[in-house]
Amino acid sequence: MALPPEFLTAAAEAADLAGAVIRPLFRSRLLIESKGDATPVTEADRAAERALRAFLTERFPAHGILGEEYGAEREGAEWLWVLDPIDGTRAFLTGRPLFGTLIGLMHRGRPVLGVIDQPVTGERWIGEAGQGTRFRAAADAPFAPVRSRPCAALGEAEFACTSPDVFTPLELQAHDAVRRQVRRTSWGGDCYIYGLIALGLIDLVVEAGLKPWDWAALVPILEGAGGSMTDWRGERLTLGSAGDVIAAGDLGLVGQVVAALA
Amino acid sequence: MALPPEFLTAAAEAADLAGAVIRPLFRSRLLIESKGDATPVTEADRAAERALRAFLTERFPAHGILGEEYGAEREGAEWLWVLDPIDGTRAFLTGRPLFGTLIGLMHRGRPVLGVIDQPVTGERWIGEAGQGTRFRAAADAPFAPVRSRPCAALGEAEFACTSPDVFTPLELQAHDAVRRQVRRTSWGGDCYIYGLIALGLIDLVVEAGLKPWDWAALVPILEGAGGSMTDWRGERLTLGSAGDVIAAGDLGLVGQVVAALA
Repeated sequence: MALPPEFLTAAAEAADLAGAVIRPLFRSRLLIESKGDATPVTEADRAAERALRAFLTERFPAHGILGEEYGAEREGAEWLWVLDPIDGTRAFLTGRPLFGTLIGLMHRGRPVLGVIDQPVTGERWIGEAGQGTRFRAAADAPFAPVRSRPCAALGEAEFACTSPDVFTPLELQAHDAVRRQVRRTSWGGDCYIYGLIALGLIDLVVEAGLKPWDWAALVPILEGAGGSMTDWRGERLTLGSAGDVIAAGDLGLVGQVVAALA
Repeated sequence: MALPPEFLTAAAEAADLAGAVIRPLFRSRLLIESKGDATPVTEADRAAERALRAFLTERFPAHGILGEEYGAEREGAEWLWVLDPIDGTRAFLTGRPLFGTLIGLMHRGRPVLGVIDQPVTGERWIGEAGQGTRFRAAADAPFAPVRSRPCAALGEAEFACTSPDVFTPLELQAHDAVRRQVRRTSWGGDCYIYGLIALGLIDLVVEAGLKPWDWAALVPILEGAGGSMTDWRGERLTLGSAGDVIAAGDLGLVGQVVAALA
Protein backbone atom coordinates (compact mmCIF):
# COMPACT_ATOMS: atom_id res chain seq x y z
CA MET A 1 0.00 0.00 0.00
CA ALA A 2 1.45 3.33 -1.10
CA LEU A 3 1.05 6.33 1.17
CA PRO A 4 -1.17 9.24 0.17
CA PRO A 5 1.06 11.31 -2.14
CA GLU A 6 0.39 14.47 -0.12
CA PHE A 7 2.36 12.92 2.77
CA LEU A 8 5.49 12.68 0.60
CA THR A 9 4.98 16.18 -0.74
CA ALA A 10 4.62 17.53 2.78
CA ALA A 11 7.76 15.72 3.98
CA ALA A 12 9.78 17.23 1.13
CA GLU A 13 8.36 20.71 1.74
CA ALA A 14 9.11 20.34 5.44
CA ALA A 15 12.76 19.47 4.65
CA ASP A 16 13.00 22.57 2.45
CA LEU A 17 11.56 24.69 5.27
CA ALA A 18 14.03 23.39 7.84
CA GLY A 19 16.95 23.85 5.43
CA ALA A 20 16.07 27.49 4.92
CA VAL A 21 16.29 28.06 8.68
CA ILE A 22 19.45 26.02 9.22
CA ARG A 23 21.60 26.79 6.16
CA PRO A 24 22.42 30.43 6.97
CA LEU A 25 23.87 29.41 10.33
CA PHE A 26 26.31 26.81 8.94
CA ARG A 27 29.90 28.05 9.53
CA SER A 28 28.47 31.44 10.45
CA ARG A 29 30.29 34.09 12.48
CA LEU A 30 27.83 33.34 15.27
CA LEU A 31 28.98 29.71 15.49
CA ILE A 32 32.66 30.65 15.34
CA GLU A 33 32.20 33.12 18.17
CA SER A 34 30.11 30.73 20.25
CA LYS A 35 33.25 28.55 20.55
CA GLY A 36 31.63 25.18 21.01
CA ASP A 37 28.69 26.48 23.03
CA ALA A 38 25.71 24.76 21.41
CA THR A 39 23.22 27.53 22.29
CA PRO A 40 22.99 29.02 18.77
CA VAL A 41 22.49 25.54 17.34
CA THR A 42 19.82 24.75 19.89
CA GLU A 43 18.13 27.98 18.89
CA ALA A 44 18.29 27.09 15.18
CA ASP A 45 17.05 23.59 16.02
CA ARG A 46 14.12 25.09 17.94
CA ALA A 47 13.30 27.67 15.27
CA ALA A 48 13.32 24.96 12.59
CA GLU A 49 11.18 22.63 14.71
CA ARG A 50 8.64 25.40 15.36
CA ALA A 51 8.43 26.04 11.61
CA LEU A 52 7.96 22.32 10.91
CA ARG A 53 5.30 21.93 13.58
CA ALA A 54 3.32 24.92 12.35
CA PHE A 55 3.51 23.68 8.77
CA LEU A 56 2.55 20.06 9.51
CA THR A 57 -0.23 21.02 11.94
CA GLU A 58 -1.80 23.27 9.35
CA ARG A 59 -1.45 20.62 6.63
CA PHE A 60 -2.60 17.65 8.77
CA PRO A 61 -4.48 18.90 11.86
CA ALA A 62 -5.30 15.37 13.04
CA HIS A 63 -1.72 14.05 12.87
CA GLY A 64 0.49 13.87 15.93
CA ILE A 65 4.00 15.37 16.19
CA LEU A 66 7.00 14.23 18.22
CA GLY A 67 10.15 16.36 18.10
CA GLU A 68 13.44 16.59 19.92
CA GLU A 69 12.95 20.12 21.19
CA TYR A 70 9.21 20.41 21.91
CA GLY A 71 8.12 16.89 22.78
CA ALA A 72 4.85 15.27 21.76
CA GLU A 73 1.47 16.60 20.62
CA ARG A 74 -1.41 14.21 19.86
CA GLU A 75 1.03 11.30 20.32
CA GLY A 76 -1.81 8.77 20.14
CA ALA A 77 -2.87 9.88 16.65
CA GLU A 78 -2.91 7.33 13.82
CA TRP A 79 -0.18 9.24 12.00
CA LEU A 80 2.78 10.66 13.95
CA TRP A 81 5.43 12.94 12.48
CA VAL A 82 8.81 12.49 14.19
CA LEU A 83 11.25 15.38 13.76
CA ASP A 84 14.88 16.23 14.33
CA PRO A 85 15.82 19.43 12.49
CA ILE A 86 19.56 19.04 13.21
CA ASP A 87 20.75 15.48 13.75
CA GLY A 88 24.51 15.73 14.30
CA THR A 89 24.80 18.89 16.37
CA ARG A 90 28.55 18.43 16.81
CA ALA A 91 29.13 18.02 13.04
CA PHE A 92 27.06 21.15 12.49
CA LEU A 93 28.98 23.13 15.15
CA THR A 94 32.37 22.13 13.73
CA GLY A 95 31.49 22.85 10.10
CA ARG A 96 31.30 19.29 8.77
CA PRO A 97 28.43 18.99 6.25
CA LEU A 98 27.47 15.53 7.53
CA PHE A 99 24.59 16.51 9.83
CA GLY A 100 21.03 16.20 8.59
CA THR A 101 17.40 17.14 9.00
CA LEU A 102 15.32 14.06 9.83
CA ILE A 103 11.62 13.92 9.04
CA GLY A 104 9.87 10.65 9.79
CA LEU A 105 6.26 9.57 9.73
CA MET A 106 4.93 6.66 11.79
CA HIS A 107 1.62 4.88 11.20
CA ARG A 108 0.24 3.26 14.35
CA GLY A 109 3.77 3.05 15.73
CA ARG A 110 5.52 1.82 12.56
CA PRO A 111 7.88 4.11 10.61
CA VAL A 112 6.48 4.32 7.08
CA LEU A 113 8.12 7.42 5.58
CA GLY A 114 11.52 9.01 6.14
CA VAL A 115 13.59 11.88 4.79
CA ILE A 116 17.26 12.63 5.49
CA ASP A 117 18.13 16.06 4.15
CA GLN A 118 21.62 17.59 4.07
CA PRO A 119 20.82 21.26 3.59
CA VAL A 120 24.36 22.36 2.65
CA THR A 121 25.13 19.82 -0.08
CA GLY A 122 21.50 19.44 -1.11
CA GLU A 123 21.68 15.66 -0.73
CA ARG A 124 18.37 14.04 0.18
CA TRP A 125 17.22 10.48 0.84
CA ILE A 126 13.51 9.53 0.75
CA GLY A 127 12.27 6.17 1.97
CA GLU A 128 8.70 4.94 1.96
CA ALA A 129 7.32 1.66 3.27
CA GLY A 130 6.90 -0.85 0.47
CA GLN A 131 8.62 1.43 -2.07
CA GLY A 132 12.26 1.70 -3.06
CA THR A 133 14.45 4.36 -1.45
CA ARG A 134 15.43 7.32 -3.63
CA PHE A 135 18.37 9.71 -3.37
CA ARG A 136 19.46 12.94 -4.98
CA ALA A 137 23.11 14.08 -4.80
CA ALA A 138 22.38 17.82 -5.00
CA ALA A 139 19.44 20.19 -4.73
CA ASP A 140 19.21 20.44 -8.53
CA ALA A 141 19.88 16.75 -9.25
CA PRO A 142 17.13 14.24 -10.05
CA PHE A 143 16.12 11.53 -7.58
CA ALA A 144 17.23 7.99 -8.47
CA PRO A 145 16.58 4.63 -6.79
CA VAL A 146 19.38 3.38 -4.51
CA ARG A 147 20.19 -0.01 -2.97
CA SER A 148 22.43 -1.23 -0.19
CA ARG A 149 25.05 -3.77 -1.28
CA PRO A 150 25.36 -7.48 -0.49
CA CYS A 151 27.62 -8.30 2.46
CA ALA A 152 26.96 -11.74 3.85
CA ALA A 153 29.79 -11.97 6.38
CA LEU A 154 30.65 -9.66 9.28
CA GLY A 155 34.32 -10.09 8.40
CA GLU A 156 33.71 -8.31 5.09
CA ALA A 157 31.70 -5.43 6.53
CA GLU A 158 32.64 -1.78 6.18
CA PHE A 159 31.65 -0.59 9.65
CA ALA A 160 30.98 2.98 10.77
CA CYS A 161 30.01 4.77 13.95
CA THR A 162 29.55 8.42 14.91
CA SER A 163 31.73 8.36 18.01
CA PRO A 164 32.89 5.96 20.73
CA ASP A 165 31.36 8.46 23.17
CA VAL A 166 27.75 7.44 22.40
CA PHE A 167 28.16 4.26 24.48
CA THR A 168 28.10 3.40 28.17
CA PRO A 169 31.18 1.36 29.20
CA LEU A 170 29.22 -1.91 28.93
CA GLU A 171 27.80 -0.98 25.55
CA LEU A 172 31.29 -0.04 24.38
CA GLN A 173 32.53 -3.53 25.27
CA ALA A 174 29.74 -5.08 23.19
CA HIS A 175 30.43 -2.65 20.35
CA ASP A 176 34.14 -3.52 20.48
CA ALA A 177 33.21 -7.18 20.09
CA VAL A 178 31.57 -6.33 16.77
CA ARG A 179 34.40 -4.00 15.79
CA ARG A 180 36.98 -6.74 16.25
CA GLN A 181 35.15 -8.87 13.69
CA VAL A 182 34.46 -6.36 10.91
CA ARG A 183 36.72 -5.62 8.00
CA ARG A 184 37.30 -1.97 8.84
CA THR A 185 35.85 0.86 10.96
CA SER A 186 35.52 4.57 10.29
CA TRP A 187 34.22 7.32 12.54
CA GLY A 188 31.91 10.32 12.31
CA GLY A 189 28.69 10.93 10.48
CA ASP A 190 25.44 10.73 12.52
CA CYS A 191 22.41 10.16 10.22
CA TYR A 192 24.64 10.57 7.17
CA ILE A 193 26.33 7.19 7.66
CA TYR A 194 22.93 5.47 7.71
CA GLY A 195 22.28 7.17 4.38
CA LEU A 196 25.59 5.79 3.11
CA ILE A 197 24.37 2.26 3.90
CA ALA A 198 21.43 2.95 1.57
CA LEU A 199 23.96 3.99 -1.11
CA GLY A 200 25.89 0.72 -0.75
CA LEU A 201 29.05 2.37 0.57
CA ILE A 202 28.88 1.30 4.22
CA ASP A 203 27.58 -2.10 5.35
CA LEU A 204 26.91 -1.69 9.04
CA VAL A 205 26.33 0.88 11.80
CA VAL A 206 25.83 -0.12 15.43
CA GLU A 207 25.01 2.64 17.91
CA ALA A 208 23.20 3.24 21.18
CA GLY A 209 21.37 6.01 22.98
CA LEU A 210 19.26 7.01 19.98
CA LYS A 211 15.88 8.66 20.51
CA PRO A 212 12.84 8.06 18.24
CA TRP A 213 13.60 11.29 16.34
CA ASP A 214 17.10 9.91 15.61
CA TRP A 215 15.84 6.67 14.03
CA ALA A 216 12.19 7.06 12.88
CA ALA A 217 13.17 8.63 9.53
CA LEU A 218 16.02 6.18 8.98
CA VAL A 219 14.04 2.92 9.19
CA PRO A 220 12.03 3.36 5.92
CA ILE A 221 15.21 4.55 4.15
CA LEU A 222 17.18 1.47 5.22
CA GLU A 223 14.29 -0.92 4.54
CA GLY A 224 13.50 0.63 1.15
CA ALA A 225 17.15 0.18 0.14
CA GLY A 226 17.11 -3.53 0.97
CA GLY A 227 18.57 -3.27 4.47
CA SER A 228 17.15 -3.09 7.97
CA MET A 229 17.31 -1.15 11.21
CA THR A 230 16.52 -2.98 14.45
CA ASP A 231 17.52 -2.95 18.10
CA TRP A 232 20.52 -4.93 19.45
CA ARG A 233 18.38 -8.08 19.68
CA GLY A 234 17.32 -7.78 16.05
CA GLU A 235 13.79 -6.69 17.06
CA ARG A 236 11.73 -3.97 15.41
CA LEU A 237 12.24 -0.46 16.88
CA THR A 238 9.23 1.03 18.68
CA LEU A 239 8.60 4.28 20.53
CA GLY A 240 9.43 2.38 23.72
CA SER A 241 12.78 1.01 22.44
CA ALA A 242 15.89 1.75 24.49
CA GLY A 243 17.66 3.32 21.51
CA ASP A 244 20.33 0.73 20.74
CA VAL A 245 20.32 0.11 16.99
CA ILE A 246 21.77 -2.14 14.30
CA ALA A 247 21.55 -0.74 10.77
CA ALA A 248 22.63 -3.23 8.13
CA GLY A 249 22.71 -3.12 4.36
CA ASP A 250 22.46 -6.91 4.10
CA LEU A 251 19.82 -8.67 6.22
CA GLY A 252 22.21 -11.59 6.63
CA LEU A 253 24.44 -9.48 8.86
CA VAL A 254 21.86 -8.86 11.57
CA GLY A 255 21.99 -12.27 13.25
CA GLN A 256 25.81 -12.19 13.29
CA VAL A 257 25.79 -8.75 14.92
CA VAL A 258 23.19 -9.78 17.50
CA ALA A 259 25.38 -12.78 18.39
CA ALA A 260 28.53 -10.67 18.64
CA LEU A 261 26.79 -8.10 20.86
CA ALA A 262 25.32 -10.68 23.22
CA MET B 1 59.03 37.27 1.07
CA ALA B 2 56.23 36.21 -1.23
CA LEU B 3 56.68 33.12 -3.38
CA PRO B 4 56.97 33.41 -7.17
CA PRO B 5 53.33 33.66 -8.33
CA GLU B 6 53.82 30.81 -10.80
CA PHE B 7 54.22 28.45 -7.83
CA LEU B 8 50.73 29.31 -6.59
CA THR B 9 49.27 29.04 -10.06
CA ALA B 10 50.87 25.62 -10.51
CA ALA B 11 49.59 24.38 -7.14
CA ALA B 12 46.03 25.41 -8.06
CA GLU B 13 46.29 23.82 -11.50
CA ALA B 14 47.69 20.66 -9.93
CA ALA B 15 44.68 20.48 -7.57
CA ASP B 16 42.35 20.85 -10.57
CA LEU B 17 44.19 18.05 -12.36
CA ALA B 18 43.94 15.67 -9.41
CA GLY B 19 40.26 16.49 -8.93
CA ALA B 20 39.48 15.59 -12.52
CA VAL B 21 40.99 12.13 -11.96
CA ILE B 22 39.43 11.54 -8.55
CA ARG B 23 35.92 13.01 -8.84
CA PRO B 24 34.46 10.44 -11.27
CA LEU B 25 35.35 7.62 -8.87
CA PHE B 26 33.57 9.11 -5.82
CA ARG B 27 30.60 6.87 -4.91
CA SER B 28 31.03 5.08 -8.23
CA ARG B 29 29.71 1.61 -9.02
CA LEU B 30 33.34 0.45 -8.96
CA LEU B 31 33.75 1.50 -5.32
CA ILE B 32 30.43 -0.03 -4.28
CA GLU B 33 31.39 -3.33 -5.90
CA SER B 34 34.90 -3.29 -4.45
CA LYS B 35 33.27 -3.64 -0.99
CA GLY B 36 35.92 -1.97 1.11
CA ASP B 37 38.85 -3.24 -0.95
CA ALA B 38 40.98 -0.14 -1.41
CA THR B 39 42.48 -1.24 -4.74
CA PRO B 40 40.39 1.08 -6.96
CA VAL B 41 41.25 3.99 -4.67
CA THR B 42 44.92 3.11 -4.75
CA GLU B 43 44.68 3.07 -8.52
CA ALA B 44 42.98 6.49 -8.58
CA ASP B 45 45.57 7.77 -6.10
CA ARG B 46 48.37 6.50 -8.36
CA ALA B 47 46.82 7.84 -11.55
CA ALA B 48 46.37 11.25 -9.94
CA GLU B 49 49.91 11.26 -8.56
CA ARG B 50 51.33 10.34 -11.97
CA ALA B 51 49.40 13.24 -13.52
CA LEU B 52 50.66 15.63 -10.84
CA ARG B 53 54.27 14.48 -11.20
CA ALA B 54 54.22 14.83 -14.99
CA PHE B 55 52.69 18.30 -14.72
CA LEU B 56 55.04 19.61 -12.01
CA THR B 57 58.16 18.10 -13.62
CA GLU B 58 57.32 19.78 -16.89
CA ARG B 59 56.59 23.10 -15.20
CA PHE B 60 59.57 23.03 -12.79
CA PRO B 61 62.20 20.53 -14.00
CA ALA B 62 64.65 21.39 -11.22
CA HIS B 63 62.14 20.91 -8.38
CA GLY B 64 61.98 17.71 -6.36
CA ILE B 65 58.82 15.66 -5.78
CA LEU B 66 57.83 13.47 -2.85
CA GLY B 67 54.56 11.57 -3.07
CA GLU B 68 52.75 8.85 -1.16
CA GLU B 69 52.61 6.37 -4.03
CA TYR B 70 55.84 6.90 -5.98
CA GLY B 71 58.34 8.12 -3.37
CA ALA B 72 60.98 10.80 -3.93
CA GLU B 73 62.64 12.27 -7.02
CA ARG B 74 65.37 14.94 -6.64
CA GLU B 75 64.61 15.02 -2.90
CA GLY B 76 67.64 17.25 -2.25
CA ALA B 77 66.36 20.00 -4.57
CA GLU B 78 65.85 23.52 -3.15
CA TRP B 79 62.11 23.26 -3.80
CA LEU B 80 60.28 20.03 -3.04
CA TRP B 81 56.63 19.33 -3.95
CA VAL B 82 54.95 16.99 -1.47
CA LEU B 83 51.82 15.24 -2.74
CA ASP B 84 48.92 13.16 -1.48
CA PRO B 85 46.17 12.95 -4.12
CA ILE B 86 43.68 11.28 -1.74
CA ASP B 87 44.21 12.01 1.94
CA GLY B 88 41.42 10.18 3.76
CA THR B 89 41.15 6.96 1.79
CA ARG B 90 38.55 5.55 4.15
CA ALA B 91 36.34 8.67 3.88
CA PHE B 92 36.65 8.42 0.10
CA LEU B 93 35.80 4.70 0.08
CA THR B 94 32.73 5.18 2.27
CA GLY B 95 31.37 8.17 0.33
CA ARG B 96 32.03 10.91 2.89
CA PRO B 97 33.14 14.11 1.08
CA LEU B 98 35.71 14.90 3.79
CA PHE B 99 38.82 13.53 2.07
CA GLY B 100 41.16 15.89 0.25
CA THR B 101 43.94 16.34 -2.26
CA LEU B 102 47.05 17.72 -0.55
CA ILE B 103 49.65 19.69 -2.48
CA GLY B 104 52.53 21.09 -0.46
CA LEU B 105 55.74 22.85 -1.40
CA MET B 106 58.81 22.87 0.84
CA HIS B 107 61.74 25.27 0.52
CA ARG B 108 64.96 23.85 1.95
CA GLY B 109 62.92 21.58 4.22
CA ARG B 110 60.34 24.18 5.35
CA PRO B 111 56.71 23.99 4.17
CA VAL B 112 55.98 27.30 2.41
CA LEU B 113 52.88 26.61 0.32
CA GLY B 114 49.93 24.31 0.84
CA VAL B 115 46.63 23.47 -0.83
CA ILE B 116 43.79 21.33 0.56
CA ASP B 117 41.29 20.63 -2.18
CA GLN B 118 37.95 18.84 -1.70
CA PRO B 119 37.11 17.86 -5.28
CA VAL B 120 33.45 16.96 -4.64
CA THR B 121 32.32 20.10 -2.80
CA GLY B 122 34.84 22.35 -4.55
CA GLU B 123 36.14 23.64 -1.24
CA ARG B 124 39.78 24.73 -1.35
CA TRP B 125 42.23 26.14 1.21
CA ILE B 126 45.45 27.89 0.10
CA GLY B 127 48.19 28.78 2.58
CA GLU B 128 51.45 30.54 1.79
CA ALA B 129 54.31 31.36 4.14
CA GLY B 130 54.07 34.94 5.34
CA GLN B 131 50.66 35.45 3.70
CA GLY B 132 47.18 34.94 5.05
CA THR B 133 45.33 31.71 4.35
CA ARG B 134 42.46 31.87 1.86
CA PHE B 135 39.45 29.61 1.40
CA ARG B 136 36.68 29.14 -1.11
CA ALA B 137 33.49 27.27 -0.18
CA ALA B 138 32.71 26.01 -3.69
CA ALA B 139 34.40 25.72 -7.08
CA ASP B 140 32.60 28.83 -8.33
CA ALA B 141 32.93 30.85 -5.09
CA PRO B 142 35.56 33.56 -4.59
CA PHE B 143 38.52 33.06 -2.25
CA ALA B 144 38.38 35.00 1.02
CA PRO B 145 40.87 35.31 3.89
CA VAL B 146 40.21 33.04 6.89
CA ARG B 147 41.47 32.98 10.48
CA SER B 148 41.49 30.48 13.28
CA ARG B 149 39.70 31.62 16.44
CA PRO B 150 41.12 32.51 19.86
CA CYS B 151 41.06 29.68 22.40
CA ALA B 152 43.44 30.28 25.26
CA ALA B 153 42.55 27.32 27.48
CA LEU B 154 42.53 23.61 26.69
CA GLY B 155 39.32 23.30 28.71
CA GLU B 156 37.54 25.47 26.11
CA ALA B 157 38.90 23.67 23.07
CA GLU B 158 36.75 22.01 20.42
CA PHE B 159 38.89 18.92 19.78
CA ALA B 160 38.78 16.63 16.74
CA CYS B 161 40.54 13.52 15.52
CA THR B 162 40.15 11.26 12.50
CA SER B 163 40.01 7.96 14.41
CA PRO B 164 41.23 6.39 17.66
CA ASP B 165 42.84 3.76 15.41
CA VAL B 166 45.68 6.05 14.24
CA PHE B 167 47.46 5.61 17.60
CA THR B 168 49.64 2.96 19.19
CA PRO B 169 48.38 1.97 22.67
CA LEU B 170 50.92 4.31 24.35
CA GLU B 171 50.05 7.18 22.02
CA LEU B 172 46.36 6.57 22.71
CA GLN B 173 47.00 6.97 26.46
CA ALA B 174 48.69 10.32 25.82
CA HIS B 175 45.90 11.37 23.46
CA ASP B 176 43.31 10.39 26.08
CA ALA B 177 45.09 12.68 28.56
CA VAL B 178 44.43 15.61 26.21
CA ARG B 179 40.92 14.43 25.48
CA ARG B 180 40.01 14.40 29.16
CA GLN B 181 40.89 18.09 29.38
CA VAL B 182 39.20 19.50 26.29
CA ARG B 183 35.69 20.84 26.08
CA ARG B 184 34.43 18.32 23.56
CA THR B 185 35.69 15.78 20.99
CA SER B 186 34.38 14.81 17.59
CA TRP B 187 35.62 12.14 15.19
CA GLY B 188 36.35 11.78 11.50
CA GLY B 189 37.78 14.11 8.92
CA ASP B 190 41.45 13.59 7.95
CA CYS B 191 42.92 16.75 6.33
CA TYR B 192 39.46 18.36 6.38
CA ILE B 193 39.49 18.89 10.16
CA TYR B 194 42.81 20.76 9.89
CA GLY B 195 41.10 22.99 7.35
CA LEU B 196 38.27 23.54 9.84
CA ILE B 197 40.83 24.86 12.35
CA ALA B 198 41.76 27.49 9.74
CA LEU B 199 38.05 28.40 9.50
CA GLY B 200 37.79 28.92 13.27
CA LEU B 201 35.38 26.01 13.82
CA ILE B 202 37.70 23.51 15.49
CA ASP B 203 40.46 24.52 17.94
CA LEU B 204 42.70 21.51 18.16
CA VAL B 205 43.69 18.27 16.40
CA VAL B 206 46.26 15.86 17.87
CA GLU B 207 47.23 12.85 15.76
CA ALA B 208 50.12 10.47 15.15
CA GLY B 209 51.55 8.36 12.38
CA LEU B 210 51.38 11.11 9.75
CA LYS B 211 53.78 11.07 6.80
CA PRO B 212 55.27 14.23 5.22
CA TRP B 213 52.62 14.12 2.46
CA ASP B 214 49.94 14.16 5.19
CA TRP B 215 51.23 17.35 6.87
CA ALA B 216 53.42 19.36 4.43
CA ALA B 217 50.45 21.11 2.80
CA LEU B 218 48.72 21.70 6.14
CA VAL B 219 51.49 23.65 7.90
CA PRO B 220 51.29 26.83 5.74
CA ILE B 221 47.48 26.71 5.91
CA LEU B 222 47.50 26.53 9.72
CA GLU B 223 50.25 29.14 10.08
CA GLY B 224 48.67 31.52 7.58
CA ALA B 225 45.40 31.34 9.53
CA GLY B 226 47.09 32.31 12.80
CA GLY B 227 47.61 28.81 14.17
CA SER B 228 50.42 26.30 14.15
CA MET B 229 51.27 22.68 13.41
CA THR B 230 54.14 21.07 15.31
CA ASP B 231 55.16 17.69 16.67
CA TRP B 232 54.12 16.45 20.15
CA ARG B 233 57.01 18.38 21.75
CA GLY B 234 55.93 21.62 20.08
CA GLU B 235 58.88 21.47 17.65
CA ARG B 236 58.76 22.30 13.96
CA LEU B 237 57.92 19.36 11.67
CA THR B 238 60.72 18.20 9.36
CA LEU B 239 61.06 15.43 6.78
CA GLY B 240 62.65 13.37 9.55
CA SER B 241 59.79 13.91 12.05
CA ALA B 242 58.10 10.84 13.51
CA GLY B 243 54.67 12.01 12.37
CA ASP B 244 53.03 12.92 15.67
CA VAL B 245 51.34 16.30 15.27
CA ILE B 246 49.59 19.06 17.22
CA ALA B 247 47.54 21.44 15.09
CA ALA B 248 46.19 24.38 17.06
CA GLY B 249 44.20 27.44 16.09
CA ASP B 250 45.54 29.44 19.06
CA LEU B 251 49.29 29.33 19.69
CA GLY B 252 48.58 29.51 23.41
CA LEU B 253 47.21 25.95 23.33
CA VAL B 254 50.42 24.28 22.17
CA GLY B 255 52.29 24.37 25.48
CA GLN B 256 49.25 23.02 27.33
CA VAL B 257 48.92 20.15 24.88
CA VAL B 258 52.64 19.33 25.05
CA ALA B 259 52.36 19.21 28.86
CA ALA B 260 49.26 17.00 28.74
CA LEU B 261 50.88 14.59 26.27
CA ALA B 262 54.11 14.24 28.28
